[in-house]
Amino acid sequence: MASGCAFCDDEGGRRLWRDERCRVVLTDEPFEAFCRVIWNAHVREMTDLSAANRAHLMHVVYAVESALRARLTPSKMNLASLGNATPHLHWHVIPRFADDTHFPNPVWGPRLREQTPQRVSDDFFPSLAADLGATLGASLA
Amino acid sequence: MASGCAFCDDEGGRRLWRDERCRVVLTDEPFEAFCRVIWNAHVREMTDLSAANRAHLMHVVYAVESALRARLTPSKMNLASLGNATPHLHWHVIPRFADDTHFPNPVWGPRLREQTPQRVSDDFFPSLAADLGATLGASLA
Repeated sequence: MASGCAFCDDEGGRRLWRDERCRVVLTDEPFEAFCRVIWNAHVREMTDLSAANRAHLMHVVYAVESALRARLTPSKMNLASLGNATPHLHWHVIPRFADDTHFPNPVWGPRLREQTPQRVSDDFFPSLAADLGATLGASLA
Repeated sequence: MASGCAFCDDEGGRRLWRDERCRVVLTDEPFEAFCRVIWNAHVREMTDLSAANRAHLMHVVYAVESALRARLTPSKMNLASLGNATPHLHWHVIPRFADDTHFPNPVWGPRLREQTPQRVSDDFFPSLAADLGATLGASLA
């Protein structure tokens, strides 16, 4: 039954990794390798989680950041938990490049360039999923 | 001597709390009670910190989130570590309100309203500083 919450009703992207508490997805945002770490349960804020659950969620966020840095060598990593439109706890984990469409603006700010060179090859998705499995343990099916 | 880094050369706002590793400041951004937690040393990414230092920094971020929620009851909290313009590790900790100038857009997105009602009174700064001292221990001078 639909709950009305996008992240309760839907995975939120292409699943890279998942455990009982949270999942990592590759989004279809117009930024290459824009990942999201989504808490599985409908929780609003980081400070609504227990300290142990907060630590677990951030451990996964850092694993995604590390994997993206190792594979893509971005100019900067951007981490954000906003949720104004979808108040279900999730983290944007975004590799930024000096020549991407918005850099140095936030991805939510004004666009500065028409196009960005493609950096992600066809095997990026399974490679990143494998990196996360190696770091975090096997993903749930 | 000026380093060329805004957060090495300057406190970054009005100091609410500080220890040997990081500091909390109230910014002059055009959003009420927009706080920033700044790592004192010039470090670029969360994954450049040790696990213990990451945990410490986030412990401070959560303390700021908790204090802002308790004092202001925001519609949503926004947390972000971007640093594209100033690649010195810092967290934006922003209480958002359904009637603020940009909500539900990110604060970096399009403005939607001219003005927002004032919520913060004159004693907000010392009160928030006292909250942080109570939670995190006495601030360094």
